[in-house]
Amino acid sequence: MKLKLAVLPGDGIGPEIVDQAMKSVKAIAEKFNHELEYEFALTGATAIDQVGDPYPETTHDICMKADAVLFGAIGDPKFDNNPKAPVRPEQGLLAMRKKLGLYANIRPVETFESLLHKSPLRRELVEGANFVAIRELTGGIYFGDKGRTDNGNTAYDHCVYTRAEVERILKLAYEFAGKRNKKLTVVDKANVLESSRLWREVAQEMAPNYPDIKTEYMFVDNAAMQIIQWPKNFDVMVTENMFGDILTDEASVITGSLGLLPSASMGIHTSVFEPIHGSYPQAAGKNIANPIATILSAAMMFEYAFDLMEEGKLIREAVDASMAEGVVTVDIAEGKSYSTSEVGDWIADYIAKK
Amino acid sequence: MKLKLAVLPGDGIGPEIVDQAMKSVKAIAEKFNHELEYEFALTGATAIDQVGDPYPETTHDICMKADAVLFGAIGDPKFDNNPKAPVRPEQGLLAMRKKLGLYANIRPVETFESLLHKSPLRRELVEGANFVAIRELTGGIYFGDKGRTDNGNTAYDHCVYTRAEVERILKLAYEFAGKRNKKLTVVDKANVLESSRLWREVAQEMAPNYPDIKTEYMFVDNAAMQIIQWPKNFDVMVTENMFGDILTDEASVITGSLGLLPSASMGIHTSVFEPIHGSYPQAAGKNIANPIATILSAAMMFEYAFDLMEEGKLIREAVDASMAEGVVTVDIAEGKSYSTSEVGDWIADYIAKK
Ligand SMILES: CC(C)[C@H](C(=O)O)[C@@H](O)C(=O)O
Ligand SMILES: CC(C)[C@H](C(=O)O)[C@@H](O)C(=O)O
Repeated sequence: MKLKLAVLPGDGIGPEIVDQAMKSVKAIAEKFNHELEYEFALTGATAIDQVGDPYPETTHDICMKADAVLFGAIGDPKFDNNPKAPVRPEQGLLAMRKKLGLYANIRPVETFESLLHKSPLRRELVEGANFVAIRELTGGIYFGDKGRTDNGNTAYDHCVYTRAEVERILKLAYEFAGKRNKKLTVVDKANVLESSRLWREVAQEMAPNYPDIKTEYMFVDNAAMQIIQWPKNFDVMVTENMFGDILTDEASVITGSLGLLPSASMGIHTSVFEPIHGSYPQAAGKNIANPIATILSAAMMFEYAFDLMEEGKLIREAVDASMAEGVVTVDIAEGKSYSTSEVGDWIADYIAKK
Repeated sequence: MKLKLAVLPGDGIGPEIVDQAMKSVKAIAEKFNHELEYEFALTGATAIDQVGDPYPETTHDICMKADAVLFGAIGDPKFDNNPKAPVRPEQGLLAMRKKLGLYANIRPVETFESLLHKSPLRRELVEGANFVAIRELTGGIYFGDKGRTDNGNTAYDHCVYTRAEVERILKLAYEFAGKRNKKLTVVDKANVLESSRLWREVAQEMAPNYPDIKTEYMFVDNAAMQIIQWPKNFDVMVTENMFGDILTDEASVITGSLGLLPSASMGIHTSVFEPIHGSYPQAAGKNIANPIATILSAAMMFEYAFDLMEEGKLIREAVDASMAEGVVTVDIAEGKSYSTSEVGDWIADYIAKK
């Protein structure tokens, strides 16, 4: 099979960890006889510094031609405390989501036995937790009209959702639930927001089409509590963009394994695979960042973008082996720790030798 | 001193727990020779059932004439799954907030040594956590224009903030921080939302006026993680309405003592004191609900609305004593448990006998 990738390392630790993931991608292509073609492209603060745009046209073209995009991370603290900066790296991320039509962000939340002691939650609450959080990614308050009036003294952001947007993401969420434990939790704020009432209305209309799936409705404030109190009660959770931003990040820390969690953003034109941990600028260039989340993102890429399940599985097996052998970076090492590139090499090597 | 109260029991367990708090309020008035005057009023689903309006004019009048409002809880599940219901209990809550100008919701987050084992977090992370979460309560997406277009197929909610609204709440937050550990965390989403950029701008302008206070800025998704991972790092946290709804609920469960946490909503016309746990309909009428959060809300009322610190302190002492003696309801009892009214009587009695 021909695998056409765009590779966007981005900022901070992005380049280092994407390098490691590409080692595994190449090892897999070799082993399974896939024809691998890939092109690197600029994004984020790095792209602002080099060409003045966090998601340049050339990058977009490369992504549009690709079957899948492997993404590192973007974001640079030098932009965070300057609310008036004319361009910010995050705008690149948002432009990419919108222009590639990446409407569904998918984050599997899983615990790793060997990292449970790092979870902030008590072990018995979180052990075995396994759910998928699905966030709508191209609508809502992120992309509505925004601006100032009254000489800059009044600021507004508009949250808008259309029935078609809600149906599209709920359909995908039902498909996930159908392949898992048949429970879908629709998170909204229907007691306050009109957009949430539309979400709930559409969900209530669609639910009867999925008779084997239990649809449950939960207010976002309650969901923020349930994620901590009873994470094992969730199977698939779906919500709108802003709520999803908050809840998926909350969910990501309960496992104690933030450095290991991958994500997929499914789109109309292509799909993007990236670790959820962000650009971690403090560690950039030090060869200490954990590459596993990015390597697991590559596994998701084989599975979701190319339907190559065996390939994904072998990557996962290699990651599990590296953890079992203790070939891991300092953030999760018990004793001796390895550098970013040592871990990347070990995992690619495992794949090659298998 | 003359204490003029409005008492709004509301729905679910509201009436039972407010009854207990009123026992303590009366005992305090008696002991400290305050002239207590109070009037009961309808609100919530109860008010819809009786007069068709969740926050009737008469209730509003009673609140406007009162120096403080003691509030139970509102909400009834029969309304939750009907997105098209013409009136909902929550509308009463929102109307009350807006009409009384309750712009600041204040939630102290504290742990109780004897309940730490109920926290979903590991003891060492949460033990000693003590912070105040302040939520803007009359602005933002809750109160912006909302509706449908395109034959009901598009829904919108507008989030709006003015400089004056942001200044008012930040001023209050700085005052709290000044009396505490001198650290203020301003939570926003300034990398995406224009309204958040206004919040951050205003905070950056005000910060130099409080040179002894450290102002810290945090994105809401990060805050959702930090609350779980490092709750002890917070002193005072302030945020806008919708983020505050989510984060304050999240924060309330990390202590293991949701049934004990009170809140205050400071307003232009009066202020409202209520437990944060909600109407808990499953327990209504059973005389099993924990009245302590409401009794502690009464303590906050003496302190915040009347500046009667001794009175507040005695209520807190009585609550501590009931817990030390094990005179508590089933939700937190280790061995024998007591009914709602037994706990209420015991605490009022302790105050009277002191
Ligand atoms: C960087 C920021 C714009 C982005 C978001 O809010 O979507 C990030 O938090 C994320 O979740 O990917
Ligand atoms: C009932 C609901 C409207 C309300 C809110 O969202 O403000 C509640 O969740 C709260 O936090 O008091």
